Amino acid sequence: MAALSFQLQHNDTGSKARAGLITTDHGQIETPIFMPVGTVGSVKAVSQQLLNSDVKAQIILGNTYHLYLRPGLEVLEKAGGLHRFNGWHKPILTDSGGYQVFSLAGTRKIKEEGVTFQSHIDGSKHLFTPEGVMDIQRTIGGDIIMAFDECPPGGSEYSYARKSLELTHRWLDRCVERFNSTPDKYGYTQNLFPIVQGAMYKDLRKQSCEYIASKNATGNAIGGLSVGEPEPVMYEICDWCCDHLPAEKPRYLMGVGTPWNILECIGMGIDMFDCVMPTRNGRNAMLFTTRGVINIDNKKWEFDYSPIDEGLDSEISNYYSKAYLRHLLKSKEILGLTIASTHNLAFYLWLVKQAREHIIAGDFESWKNNIIPVLKQRL
Amino acid sequence: MAALSFQLQHNDTGSKARAGLITTDHGQIETPIFMPVGTVGSVKAVSQQLLNSDVKAQIILGNTYHLYLRPGLEVLEKAGGLHRFNGWHKPILTDSGGYQVFSLAGTRKIKEEGVTFQSHIDGSKHLFTPEGVMDIQRTIGGDIIMAFDECPPGGSEYSYARKSLELTHRWLDRCVERFNSTPDKYGYTQNLFPIVQGAMYKDLRKQSCEYIASKNATGNAIGGLSVGEPEPVMYEICDWCCDHLPAEKPRYLMGVGTPWNILECIGMGIDMFDCVMPTRNGRNAMLFTTRGVINIDNKKWEFDYSPIDEGLDSEISNYYSKAYLRHLLKSKEILGLTIASTHNLAFYLWLVKQAREHIIAGDFESWKNNIIPVLKQRL
Repeated sequence: MAALSFQLQHNDTGSKARAGLITTDHGQIETPIFMPVGTVGSVKAVSQQLLNSDVKAQIILGNTYHLYLRPGLEVLEKAGGLHRFNGWHKPILTDSGGYQVFSLAGTRKIKEEGVTFQSHIDGSKHLFTPEGVMDIQRTIGGDIIMAFDECPPGGSEYSYARKSLELTHRWLDRCVERFNSTPDKYGYTQNLFPIVQGAMYKDLRKQSCEYIASKNATGNAIGGLSVGEPEPVMYEICDWCCDHLPAEKPRYLMGVGTPWNILECIGMGIDMFDCVMPTRNGRNAMLFTTRGVINIDNKKWEFDYSPIDEGLDSEISNYYSKAYLRHLLKSKEILGLTIASTHNLAFYLWLVKQAREHIIAGDFESWKNNIIPVLKQRL
Repeated sequence: MAALSFQLQHNDTGSKARAGLITTDHGQIETPIFMPVGTVGSVKAVSQQLLNSDVKAQIILGNTYHLYLRPGLEVLEKAGGLHRFNGWHKPILTDSGGYQVFSLAGTRKIKEEGVTFQSHIDGSKHLFTPEGVMDIQRTIGGDIIMAFDECPPGGSEYSYARKSLELTHRWLDRCVERFNSTPDKYGYTQNLFPIVQGAMYKDLRKQSCEYIASKNATGNAIGGLSVGEPEPVMYEICDWCCDHLPAEKPRYLMGVGTPWNILECIGMGIDMFDCVMPTRNGRNAMLFTTRGVINIDNKKWEFDYSPIDEGLDSEISNYYSKAYLRHLLKSKEILGLTIASTHNLAFYLWLVKQAREHIIAGDFESWKNNIIPVLKQRL
C-alpha cells in the first residue's frame, strides 16, 4: 500500500497538455481524466455496472456533505468505507464539503474555527472544521481527499478574496496537520490534495499556488473557477495557476465544465476534471455527442431512429435510438434518465481518452481546434 | 412465420399445473411465465439490457392506451413496430387499452360502438372501438394482442355483469372479424387472445369461457379478477375458469398478483401472468425475496451489508447490499428504483422458473405449500 504516484508519460509539444498515469491502491487512472460525480455514493441514474461497461469510468467522486448527512458516518464506517458500501472498487475522490456548505447561503456561518450550517434534509445544525472534515473523509474512505477551503463567491472583491485566501491557507495547515497525524482507516493509502483559491486575482492565485505547492502533496487542485466569471477569465486564471503549480504532480480543476472547457484546460496542463454537467444536463434532455449538442426534446428527433451516438463504443449510446430516448424523456420514464446520463458520461470519458491519445500522438492542439467547433454545434 | 403454438410439456400429477412451451415469431416462452409490464415501451426503471441479463424476461407487456397516446402510432409504425422502437426483440404482448380506459372513471363513456375517453396527458377526446383497437395493436406490433373487453368494476351486480359480458362478447365478434380481415404488418404473425369476463358469477364465467373457447384462438385470457374481491373468491373463479377453458391452449390470468397468488393459480392451470406489483412495490421499498418480504425502508436494514438476495442469480440482487439499497431509496436516488425493480422482477421470473422445474420434477404441490409461508413472511 503506497501513496498516490503520478507518472508523466508524455508532454505535448504544441501545448502544455500532458498524458500521465496516476497509481492508487485502488488501481490506476490514465490522465487526462474526467471523474463522474456520485453525490451520495451513486452517480445519478447510472449503476456501477454501467460505469464500468459503458462509461468506462476510472475514478468517481463522492460528496462529503451529502454522505456525512446520509447515510452517515456510522453506516459507512461499519461497511468498511464507501468502496465496500457502494461496490465501486476503483478509485474514489471525495470533496471537502466546503463548496456544498457555502452554497447553503443564509443558513451557514463562517468563523475561524470552521463553518456552521444546517442540514437541507432536517434542518439540524452541524459544524465543519478542517480537522473534522479530515476525519470525515478518512471515514468515508476516498483514495483522494480534499482540503477544507473557502470558495469565495463569484465576483468577490479583492479584499474579501485576500482574507478568504488567508483563511483557506490557515485551514490547509490544520488539514495537513490532522491528516498527517491520523492513520489510514481501511488498509489502503488516502491522499490529501490542497486547493488553490484567490478568486480572479492573479497575485492571490500565484501566492496560493506557491503556498499549496510548499505542502508537497501528491496532487493539487484549483478551486473557485466556473463560479460565474466570463469564460476567457476562467481560462486565463486556469492557465496562470497551471504555470505556478508543480509539473510533476497531477492538477485537478474542480467543477469544470463543458466539453470544450475541458479540452481547452487540458491544453493548459490540467489532468483531472469533475462536473455534474453530463448527468444533470442529460436528465434535462441535453445530449453531448461526437457530432455536436442535441436537445432531444426537440420535435426534429421524433422520427429519428438512428442510434444516439455511433461514435462511441458505449452500448447504451449505440443500442437506443434518438426517437426512443426522446419518447422516454417526454414520458418522464426513469430509463430515459439512465440512458441520457450514461451516454453523456460515456461521451465525456471518450473525450478525455481521445485527448490523451492525441497528446501521445503529438497532434493534440490541431485536433482540439478542429473538434471544438464540431462538439459545440447545435444539431 | 407462423401463428403462436403451445406445446404442453408436462402435466403435474398432484395439481392442475402444467409446464409448456409457447412458440412465437420472436422466440419461445417457457411456461408458466411472468411478463414484466412495460407501460409506454419501457419496463419502469429497468433497461432492456437488465431485462435480459438479470431479470431473464422472456416476454414483456406494452399498454395500448399509453402507447397510443405517446409516442403515438405514427412514431411506432415508422419505426417498424414496438420491438424495433424499444429494442426488445423477444415476444411482446399488448393489452387492449380497455382496462386503462375504464380506470379513467368520470371521463369515459361506454356505448355499443365503443368507449370515448379523455387523454390523461392533454385532455383530448378519443374513441376506442373493437375495430380501432385491433388496428392500433396491429400497428404497435405485439406478438400477442388482446381483445377489447369491458372489465366490470369489482362488486358489480349480476344484472350489470351480465349486460357487460354480452357487450364484451359482441365486441369480441367484432375484434375477431377485424383481426381476421387485416394482415400482419411487420412480417411476423400476430395472435389475438380473447378475454373471459363475468365478474364473480360462475354461470356467467362458464358461459364466457365457452363463448371464448368457441373462437378457437391460439390462447385465452381471464380478465376481471383481482379487482377488489377477497382472495378466496379470486381463486375460486380462476379455478372455475381454468376448468372451462381448453387445456391445449395457454391460459393467461391478467393483472395477478402476489408471488403466492401466482403459485396458487399455477396450480389451477394458469400459464401466463402479468402485474405491476414487482416494479411498483419495488419503487416503494417493498422487496420480494427468496426468504420473504422486506420493507427496505425499515431501520433494521440500516447496517445489513448482506446482498439483497443471494438466492437469485441476478447480478444486481447479489452485487448490492440491503444497506446500500435502503440508503439509495431513502435518498430518492434513481439507482435505488432501478435496483429494487430489477431485483423484484428477477425474483418473479425465478419464482415461475422454479414452479416450472417442480412441475417437471413432479413435486410442484408440496414445493408450493412449503415455499408460500416462507415467501409470505415479513423479514
